[in-house]
Amino acid sequence: MKLADLPTPALVLERPVLVRNIAGMASALAPHRVRLRPHLKTAKSIDVARFALGDGQGAITVSTLAEAEYFAAHGITDILYAVGITAEKLEQVAKLNAAGADVAVITDDAETAAAIGSFPTRIRALIEIDSGEGRGGLTPEDPALFTVAAAMGSRLAGVMTHAGQSYAARERATIAEIAEAERAAVVRAAERLIAAGHAVPIVSMGSSPTALTAASFDGITEVRAGVYMFGDLFQAAIGTHGAEDIAVTVLASVIGRRPDAGQFLIDAGAIALSKDRSTEATAHDYGFGQVRDLAGRPSFGTAIVRRAYQEHGVCAADPELPFPALKVGEKVRVAPNHVCLTVAAHDRYFVTDDNVTVAAVWQRVNGW
Amino acid sequence: MKLADLPTPALVLERPVLVRNIAGMASALAPHRVRLRPHLKTAKSIDVARFALGDGQGAITVSTLAEAEYFAAHGITDILYAVGITAEKLEQVAKLNAAGADVAVITDDAETAAAIGSFPTRIRALIEIDSGEGRGGLTPEDPALFTVAAAMGSRLAGVMTHAGQSYAARERATIAEIAEAERAAVVRAAERLIAAGHAVPIVSMGSSPTALTAASFDGITEVRAGVYMFGDLFQAAIGTHGAEDIAVTVLASVIGRRPDAGQFLIDAGAIALSKDRSTEATAHDYGFGQVRDLAGRPSFGTAIVRRAYQEHGVCAADPELPFPALKVGEKVRVAPNHVCLTVAAHDRYFVTDDNVTVAAVWQRVNGW
Repeated sequence: MKLADLPTPALVLERPVLVRNIAGMASALAPHRVRLRPHLKTAKSIDVARFALGDGQGAITVSTLAEAEYFAAHGITDILYAVGITAEKLEQVAKLNAAGADVAVITDDAETAAAIGSFPTRIRALIEIDSGEGRGGLTPEDPALFTVAAAMGSRLAGVMTHAGQSYAARERATIAEIAEAERAAVVRAAERLIAAGHAVPIVSMGSSPTALTAASFDGITEVRAGVYMFGDLFQAAIGTHGAEDIAVTVLASVIGRRPDAGQFLIDAGAIALSKDRSTEATAHDYGFGQVRDLAGRPSFGTAIVRRAYQEHGVCAADPELPFPALKVGEKVRVAPNHVCLTVAAHDRYFVTDDNVTVAAVWQRVNGW
Repeated sequence: MKLADLPTPALVLERPVLVRNIAGMASALAPHRVRLRPHLKTAKSIDVARFALGDGQGAITVSTLAEAEYFAAHGITDILYAVGITAEKLEQVAKLNAAGADVAVITDDAETAAAIGSFPTRIRALIEIDSGEGRGGLTPEDPALFTVAAAMGSRLAGVMTHAGQSYAARERATIAEIAEAERAAVVRAAERLIAAGHAVPIVSMGSSPTALTAASFDGITEVRAGVYMFGDLFQAAIGTHGAEDIAVTVLASVIGRRPDAGQFLIDAGAIALSKDRSTEATAHDYGFGQVRDLAGRPSFGTAIVRRAYQEHGVCAADPELPFPALKVGEKVRVAPNHVCLTVAAHDRYFVTDDNVTVAAVWQRVNGW
């Protein structure tokens, strides 16, 4: 089947770009001899995971227990569920582990740590550290670090942090500074715990920007990153990768045109693209995505999805937009602002190697 | 099962509110003796459709061919697919119709109209009219109206419009004016076509705000509306319904807390809630949703989801937020900004009549 014949909207994944992005991360980390634990929250696909793991030991990160269950069913055992756990969810984790997985959890909460510590079966747990994002986690100097560690007891398996504030940076030098702060915070927490007599086998940090930029991973045992596999307009804007390295686009059909108003309508809207507006905060605002041609090339000048309704995208550009080329029924591809949210609405990838033919169809595991 | 025991995040639907909202629309339309063709793009559920249709003749509106296929499989035949069709998609429509459905399509494009006109089997088609939104459709005075109608030939079944600009209005009087403009535009298009010798059996208009507010439906044969069934913070802000009439919320667990920073984390983020920020343009900005208690009451003062990451929502409020009541593991419910996008990430509704017990589980048809 050809891309041009797919029902629209549909998710297109360019395998050569995926492979290149994965190789780029491997190259960036190679000199540091630090292990990568790919985050599958974006891809949610065993087929993508196999590329991301390469010759790795099969350790991954996930953002939902549905992902943990899915990847465990596909034979991946070493799984870090990197969203704060609750006591109630431990049963589900224990069930996966009883079936052969080894899912580790995270928390920064003493009562939850106590629930993990006293849970009938062993579930490995990491303490979440805040390295400056201000979302979850304890700061490295927080005395609660010892309370949480004591409550976990023998289930304590390490510390982890995520410098999500790297997404607010625009310069490589700033991102490198954030990477160093991320490293220093989680290593400091580990050192304090070790000094207090705890074993801390895992010291985990990561986000795609900091993983690609950090000057040092001293004291770090593993790096987590995910969006680098696909890339998007926002990651390109902050320099994680080049504009030509966006592996995922949404194939859409033109469903209306108004040459006089300089706009056309496509059948990919707020659900197919998401309402993420990340590039609004960067040097170039791409609206709800950049409109490319069927071959994935940015052939339509400045064309973007300017407005997004549930199933309609209103595309517009500077006046030079070549309307004659865009008749109703023609196909375009939209590069996403924030790929993690765009892919979330789709249940499969149509994989292509040549931007013409569908080489494979890869399923995703959505929901919870 | 109790709501409190559901895995989170999960979609909760309060059936009494759904029933009340449906009755409210029926009451508003009753004096006008105009037929309602409920739009199922929000609900995407046969169980909700049965309530929405009541004693009706079973005519519905959909936004995807996946919805058309699903509802046809559940025995609903009279279906309007209210997103511009392409020639390529006619095959799929024809297949549904051959199996017993009667799916009608829309376009404003002459070439597409010609494809419909010459398609081997009869597919009813409506001409889309622009009544001021500037998204799709021909203006009523556009000479292309006759070109498109002629191209459709005997497949022409009517005209339709959607005054989506009603969402930008904030006063009932303004919405009533938009409703009248919506009515006048589509009726004018019908009159011009009739004067030119065409039969125009369907004259269709609608959006939830205009359907509830219009003073007259003279010349209109049917009204389309959908979001009124569930309601959301945005529709409450523009007066479509009261704040107590939001039928759908997202159940979430607290997964972290920072009393010192006045914030807590929940396991419902940008996917479970969507990144829609509709209320930003209203008198009260609810961030990514309003935080309510497990019983659905707004007990936490001004608490909203202030930041949304893929699977994390950062909740914050004015200082009076009762932190002692919100331990990790506690459940809250988030009222959505724009319910159509929030429900899109979920595959089922957990239906409750009493805000305590799960009375039913209703499936949704997502995707395309």
